[in-house]
Amino acid sequence: MRMYDVIVKKRDGGQLSKEEIEFFVEGYTQGDIPDYQASALTMAIYFQGMTPEETATLTQAMVDSGETIDLSQIKGHKVDKHSTGGVGDKVTFIVGPLVASVGVPVAKMSGRGLGHTGGTLDKLESVKGLEIEMTKEQFIQNVNEHKLAVAGQTGNLAPADKKLYALRDVTGTVDSLPLIAGSIMSKKLASGADSIVLDVKTGSGAFMKTLEDSEALAQEMVNIGNNLGRNTIAVISDMNQPLGFEVGNANEIKEAAEILQGKKVEDLRELSLEIASHMTVLAEVFSNYEEAYQALEQNLENGKAFASFRKLIESQHGDTAMIDDLSLLPKAAHAIEVTAEQDGYVAEIDAESIGIAAMYLGAGRATKDDQIDHGVGITLKKKIGDQVKAGEALVILHSVESNADSSVQKVKEAYQISSTQVEKPKLIYKVIK
Amino acid sequence: MRMYDVIVKKRDGGQLSKEEIEFFVEGYTQGDIPDYQASALTMAIYFQGMTPEETATLTQAMVDSGETIDLSQIKGHKVDKHSTGGVGDKVTFIVGPLVASVGVPVAKMSGRGLGHTGGTLDKLESVKGLEIEMTKEQFIQNVNEHKLAVAGQTGNLAPADKKLYALRDVTGTVDSLPLIAGSIMSKKLASGADSIVLDVKTGSGAFMKTLEDSEALAQEMVNIGNNLGRNTIAVISDMNQPLGFEVGNANEIKEAAEILQGKKVEDLRELSLEIASHMTVLAEVFSNYEEAYQALEQNLENGKAFASFRKLIESQHGDTAMIDDLSLLPKAAHAIEVTAEQDGYVAEIDAESIGIAAMYLGAGRATKDDQIDHGVGITLKKKIGDQVKAGEALVILHSVESNADSSVQKVKEAYQISSTQVEKPKLIYKVIK
Repeated sequence: MRMYDVIVKKRDGGQLSKEEIEFFVEGYTQGDIPDYQASALTMAIYFQGMTPEETATLTQAMVDSGETIDLSQIKGHKVDKHSTGGVGDKVTFIVGPLVASVGVPVAKMSGRGLGHTGGTLDKLESVKGLEIEMTKEQFIQNVNEHKLAVAGQTGNLAPADKKLYALRDVTGTVDSLPLIAGSIMSKKLASGADSIVLDVKTGSGAFMKTLEDSEALAQEMVNIGNNLGRNTIAVISDMNQPLGFEVGNANEIKEAAEILQGKKVEDLRELSLEIASHMTVLAEVFSNYEEAYQALEQNLENGKAFASFRKLIESQHGDTAMIDDLSLLPKAAHAIEVTAEQDGYVAEIDAESIGIAAMYLGAGRATKDDQIDHGVGITLKKKIGDQVKAGEALVILHSVESNADSSVQKVKEAYQISSTQVEKPKLIYKVIK
Repeated sequence: MRMYDVIVKKRDGGQLSKEEIEFFVEGYTQGDIPDYQASALTMAIYFQGMTPEETATLTQAMVDSGETIDLSQIKGHKVDKHSTGGVGDKVTFIVGPLVASVGVPVAKMSGRGLGHTGGTLDKLESVKGLEIEMTKEQFIQNVNEHKLAVAGQTGNLAPADKKLYALRDVTGTVDSLPLIAGSIMSKKLASGADSIVLDVKTGSGAFMKTLEDSEALAQEMVNIGNNLGRNTIAVISDMNQPLGFEVGNANEIKEAAEILQGKKVEDLRELSLEIASHMTVLAEVFSNYEEAYQALEQNLENGKAFASFRKLIESQHGDTAMIDDLSLLPKAAHAIEVTAEQDGYVAEIDAESIGIAAMYLGAGRATKDDQIDHGVGITLKKKIGDQVKAGEALVILHSVESNADSSVQKVKEAYQISSTQVEKPKLIYKVIK
């Protein structure tokens, strides 16, 4: 087999066979196929697309290129959850304990990465003493005992995806649906879950800006999962503004804990219940969505979900006092109000600008070596559709310095005030199974 | 400027600016831009195409990437001729002397290369003693004195094209019209001619199989030439069968010499007159095509064209006895007839198969180190439309060995005999200015 023929076949719109895709993925991972042929193929895929069969085969080949995590020692049906990423997205901290509270095992492997705020691990580390490094045995024991553990990702998962993504990143082929879907799913599948619920964000603050693109990506990922024997559901949810009211690290943990204690932050609570319901139905703990939703909502009210969260913190040596009294969580010294300059209604809150404002405060990493400050962040006081008066606070910046002009500027850019009334955006657009 | 942005702009159908194209060509030639980004860009160009302006800019940038040949010391308007390549194409050997015979200077730089038969230089070297290596001064002196010289190409012409072509060759982006046109024209333009006549072949034996594709390529090349200040004309001519009756090296020289002596080999003579007419009109020796054609035809009859050919051979130290008596040219020992198996009319002669048959005999090079045998080759006895009886010769193979089974087999595959009458194919399809 020659890589040249594989490129030309795809260039001309052909469907690549299993053998051809495996030849490419194996050869590229091992360095037998050079970057310049791989980039030509990915550009051809950008233009010609891939069938669901091709995409599933590519994903499986990328999974097979490295280690996979064996969760067979965990009892029960393991359901994983993945978000395509957004600002203020602390759904994992709600959904994990909530699902665990009805007996579904959640073995969560997470990363840090670059971004406006820290990753899942960074946010959790807002709680003093909390450890995310543990042996595989300890991780599995924790899940079996408490139904929930969160650990740093170990092992060489999907190295083909890692290498290919780095190449796509510099050759203009990131924006290919089958390649995006294959990349995300290869890492999820290598992590060993039995079923997967995907939270696909849509809107100005999401990777996919339009509903149409978000749906297409969701469909690609669901196809891959189902083609490869994992029940997969995608929820398409709004990211035209930050999720909830808190953006940062400790303040996101705080908001998640409040939801777990029954607080009714509409969009965040609703999306968490939606995702948790699908997860528990996939895990066959409930027979349908309505039944799951009702039981889960109850566990937000009766303290069981919060107890599950507290157990997570305790079992990973975090300071539970901070959870019992959320005011003990780290908090920056200065609270700086950014106020509205005119009367009206909030029409837009560009999530990406809010994210950048949080990063300026020190909540995230622009480069790998940046230190995260867990106590800084942004509290939104107004969301889309809210009425606002000139001089009233739009957000509060939690800042180490008394001056945070660059963040203030970014927040002002993010908010658009309309003189006429504005409808609140829809939260959940579609569920794709 | 970032190469990434150039790739994405083209991927999304944008028109690249002069600065962007020069950034790419210079950076790639110097090794600052890696192969994997160049291959992604060429694949994007494959799908999105290039405007005439972009293609001209790319071509000029490739010309500027290396040396250019300075023909300013040659008196008069220099016209070059280029063929996209076919089997039995010895038009250069006719057109050169013919055009020189009316006073137009022809400074021909040629190559050897791989192929079914030798290149222009190899064919000329069928004449004993003929030298194609000479100093630049000698070359220019020869053209000024005799209006005609043929030399091996020296200098580092269009290295960007060389590097890019090698990359395209292994990444499936050879078949892109603007890139093909730019590649051909960059070498032609670096060779220094004032005007160019292109012989674009079309048909089963040509690089471009359909008239539509051939026209498109011709138009691209004419656009480039005209955009860059060179008067350029393309003649689209038939390559559904070999041109003339001889395929090889010495036997092609022989056939060319016969045409120059007034022999009427229809397709070959006609195409040569067509191309020479356009060349001499571009050189402003004649005011129109009809006038040129008439004068050139006369020079085929009155011996002037042949005298010009003889002068070329003499000035480059070739054995003129071989030209005065063409039977002295090298000829292989064995003449093997391939005969028709049925009565009928020749419907097809696959030119490529005839070329391969000639290569099997030793007429061409499959690899760089192969030696060419000037005396081997193929003489066609029947062309498309000719009536043939079972047992009658279709071709004669001139072979060193008494056995040439693989060539015989190839020739048999090439010829299709129809029981009903077949029309001769058109020779010249179109002229694009």
